[in-house]
Amino acid sequence: MYPECLKKVIECLKDLPGIGDKTAERLAFSLINFNKEKLTLFSDAISDLRDKITNCSICGNITDSEVCPICQDLNRNDKVLFVVEKPKDILLFEKLNIYDGKYHVLGNLISPLEGIGPEDINLDSLISRIKNFHVEEVILALKPSIEGETTMQYIKKILESVDVKITKIATGIPVGTDMEYIDAMTLEFALEGRKDI
Amino acid sequence: MYPECLKKVIECLKDLPGIGDKTAERLAFSLINFNKEKLTLFSDAISDLRDKITNCSICGNITDSEVCPICQDLNRNDKVLFVVEKPKDILLFEKLNIYDGKYHVLGNLISPLEGIGPEDINLDSLISRIKNFHVEEVILALKPSIEGETTMQYIKKILESVDVKITKIATGIPVGTDMEYIDAMTLEFALEGRKDI
Repeated sequence: MYPECLKKVIECLKDLPGIGDKTAERLAFSLINFNKEKLTLFSDAISDLRDKITNCSICGNITDSEVCPICQDLNRNDKVLFVVEKPKDILLFEKLNIYDGKYHVLGNLISPLEGIGPEDINLDSLISRIKNFHVEEVILALKPSIEGETTMQYIKKILESVDVKITKIATGIPVGTDMEYIDAMTLEFALEGRKDI
Repeated sequence: MYPECLKKVIECLKDLPGIGDKTAERLAFSLINFNKEKLTLFSDAISDLRDKITNCSICGNITDSEVCPICQDLNRNDKVLFVVEKPKDILLFEKLNIYDGKYHVLGNLISPLEGIGPEDINLDSLISRIKNFHVEEVILALKPSIEGETTMQYIKKILESVDVKITKIATGIPVGTDMEYIDAMTLEFALEGRKDI
């Protein structure tokens, strides 16, 4: 019923997260109304994504060069390492403009259930960075979940013999959220992490 | 902060309807995780869309050939013409599998406010199709709005002298909708269009 190339665009759009049949159709039809220059730009941008995006050889962040701009930046403090699961997490924190240290991307979290062990995540390079650059603080910013906690405990254990401060970002009630919608475990963490005011 | 090509993909995605900053970022990051074959497919599909999609020279439907498959289909009844605003409307009705006549796409609706007059919509070819193929019924399936009604009245008027039945699809309460959410004009149309049971 659809022309072949439209069908293909719809199929590709449906592979994106949160895009179902109807949305994919709607988006594909709106693409038809894009002018030729815009479609060229879009098509080229996707093939550039395929050809140019790689992972930073130091921290694992996505980049189009050998080393990402953050690792290249000599003005950033390399005595602090901020450990995240995914490259996107870096961008979330970078947007806040409150952190000027370096990052490290694990790429995954330890999950025995899914068969992801410590050897499957970017740990060796984390340890050698900590040792080689005499890092003073490692901030763990992994999501509060079984996998996140397991990974944090594992990192704490392998760094036992290394002289480095290890912290993790706070688990608690998000700003603006009604208490009644918060799960029991978060409430427990929030209570445990209470502070003097 | 982002690699250049990722930035471009995000910009392109943001041009799509209903896709804001956050969604565009989320989709772009998920594209990074696509394998190279899938990204090639996606990029090629978009450039094919640019190069191959055109409008059927008979009905105005989108197609990748000179004449669309519906117009080419000799098994379809060409004594009935189903008039729609956009190519996508054809697909909505085709999916129902209840209509076996031909279609005609106006491309737009008459809208004096937006400066769209009768000469800006695909009317001349509609009239010549009706005359040349001795069409017996024209079904108007335009959205119930000022523009839709104006266009329908205009079509009725210019076809006055032609021996053809003109109908329009019913305006009324959609199935499964609570009456209280329906606007006054729809209720009025629904009452006016009441049927014996």
